[in-house]
Amino acid sequence: MTETTDPGSRTSASAQGLQRIIISVDAMGGDRGPAAVVAGLGKSARKNKHIGFILHGDKDEIEPLVAKRPELKGICEVRHAEGVVTMTDKPTQILRTGKNTSMWSAIDSVKNGEAEVCVSCGNTGALMALSMMRLRKLPGVSRPAIAVFWPSRNPIGFNIMLDGGADIRADEMDLLQYALMGASYARNGHGIQRPRVGLLNVGTEEHKGRAEIKAAADLITDAAPVANFDYIGFVEGGDLLSDRVDVIVTDGFTGNVALKTGEGTAKMVNEALKDAFLATPLSRIAALLATTSLRRLKKRMDPRRSNGGVFLGLNGTVVKSHGSADATSFSAAIKLAFDLAQSGFNEKLAARVAYTPGDTQDAPALIEKKASAEE
Amino acid sequence: MTETTDPGSRTSASAQGLQRIIISVDAMGGDRGPAAVVAGLGKSARKNKHIGFILHGDKDEIEPLVAKRPELKGICEVRHAEGVVTMTDKPTQILRTGKNTSMWSAIDSVKNGEAEVCVSCGNTGALMALSMMRLRKLPGVSRPAIAVFWPSRNPIGFNIMLDGGADIRADEMDLLQYALMGASYARNGHGIQRPRVGLLNVGTEEHKGRAEIKAAADLITDAAPVANFDYIGFVEGGDLLSDRVDVIVTDGFTGNVALKTGEGTAKMVNEALKDAFLATPLSRIAALLATTSLRRLKKRMDPRRSNGGVFLGLNGTVVKSHGSADATSFSAAIKLAFDLAQSGFNEKLAARVAYTPGDTQDAPALIEKKASAEE
Repeated sequence: MTETTDPGSRTSASAQGLQRIIISVDAMGGDRGPAAVVAGLGKSARKNKHIGFILHGDKDEIEPLVAKRPELKGICEVRHAEGVVTMTDKPTQILRTGKNTSMWSAIDSVKNGEAEVCVSCGNTGALMALSMMRLRKLPGVSRPAIAVFWPSRNPIGFNIMLDGGADIRADEMDLLQYALMGASYARNGHGIQRPRVGLLNVGTEEHKGRAEIKAAADLITDAAPVANFDYIGFVEGGDLLSDRVDVIVTDGFTGNVALKTGEGTAKMVNEALKDAFLATPLSRIAALLATTSLRRLKKRMDPRRSNGGVFLGLNGTVVKSHGSADATSFSAAIKLAFDLAQSGFNEKLAARVAYTPGDTQDAPALIEKKASAEE
Repeated sequence: MTETTDPGSRTSASAQGLQRIIISVDAMGGDRGPAAVVAGLGKSARKNKHIGFILHGDKDEIEPLVAKRPELKGICEVRHAEGVVTMTDKPTQILRTGKNTSMWSAIDSVKNGEAEVCVSCGNTGALMALSMMRLRKLPGVSRPAIAVFWPSRNPIGFNIMLDGGADIRADEMDLLQYALMGASYARNGHGIQRPRVGLLNVGTEEHKGRAEIKAAADLITDAAPVANFDYIGFVEGGDLLSDRVDVIVTDGFTGNVALKTGEGTAKMVNEALKDAFLATPLSRIAALLATTSLRRLKKRMDPRRSNGGVFLGLNGTVVKSHGSADATSFSAAIKLAFDLAQSGFNEKLAARVAYTPGDTQDAPALIEKKASAEE
């Protein structure tokens, strides 16, 4: 099926006797270009026999890359798109003039039902703006959010934080919705049966923090028993990596700053460690002796293995891969997209965010309907 | 002079032929109690012949600790205070009923002119509230800020960020004042002749961010040539550790979350590294071989060596030491306090924040008056 524009890839794949989940991929817009993207798809295809792709972008550039990889033969349709959204394009501009871009086309494959999930490593702001316009928000959602991973001491190895930067504002109702969406994502996307939800603040005492955060704390406390999660109260920056919480709720401004601060700190410590091992002949020998242990450490801390921000609150799932993603990193984002598609979590999410403050144990019929939709 | 309540320590010290700078120290309220504080003073006294202390707290507990340290003999006055501000006390409560506490008494030594700087490792919120009430804000300052250090790749080894958590709100005028105060602090407290100032945001593009941040960018751009610093524009979370900026301006909510996130990340990487070296017999040998290099790395990354948030914007200097400070850490805060007192930076800061938007190159007399006060 390579090198065809026939949109019937999903059916064709099934006809070969395999029920494939189709992922729509924006091949353009990442810092490393389509070569890294196609290499990532190759990695994923070798590990997963139930995956297929619709790849959007410059046909002349992409098709030779796909043709070189036998593992992509028959499972990767290339869809030509003239335009590319760059990292410096303004989202508002793309909404007006971006119809010919690979990003727009990739999102539309989800809108049209050809693919289950869209993955892009392009401009985050433009990807969110286009996703909101083309897929529309779920009923009851005011601001969609980006859920990101944070390596942590939790048994599953990471925490979930949202909003990671979809919107710079969030009032108490938005923060409540983030809690509901985050808890549903943790349960249905990652198997955490009863997620512990915390609200990011400057202290754990009740009297601290901004007014909207204190108001959100009350709303989330009320929602927790109905929506089947534990609200653990305020958490601080250091808790983003702790094992006392699964889902951390914050506005997109704070979330984005925290995310980049954490990445920057880890990178600096890593570089300092490298310097230390290169400092003396003895330390170089030490580095050799510790190779295995250090490799294990590097793997554990490797942000490429938990690559992928998930847009929550839309009629369809969109995964944002890191702009500088290499093949390993992009393949991790594809795996996340596949897992989410397989779990059908977006339908369960839609059921969950239908909660409104005031829903209580006194409305058992409604609650049970929700719970059965989710579990 | 140990074990006396005579307030004339400053004179007495001078009478011994040494011109001592007196630091007022709150001995209580830290997680490790007065023993760690007194041990820290001992460390400082051994390294610095020009320092003296007024130590506030429970006399019965403190005096034996001081008496055990010959290096503190004759340079450490103990001032009895009955009460202690705990970490869970509400600042508003302390303002009403805290008159008998060691914290209140320590700040008053600066207010009365007995000491140059106050150092405490107690409750941050209470310390800021009391400092504002007792010392009052500098003319023209609306919200004082806490300036904190961030280990970085800069030649001086750290960046300065403010506000680290004095106030959870900041409008554009507050952010402008933080820029002015931060630049003056970098110049007069740390010898950076022409500080590079950046404004923390979710992206470096001009169209991004909250309204007050965009407005602040305009105000700071105008102020930079008059106040003699370089405004480098928006910076992101990762830049807190970079060498492209010296002073990072943000609101206290974001600053506090970023600070704790960075600390938490560094701590987690450190623990993971320890695990890696203990993993196998070979890696344990490696750790032995690399001892010197790893010790150097640890020293470079040790947050205890850059301990001390400085309260800017008050009539007097207050240094907040980390609540869990040990002797090494508390001694670092004392050294910072001494350096600031010696530089007389608070007077220069007062001259600097007298800038108001609209001051331009057209008012050379005013500018030159400021510049000479500052340089």
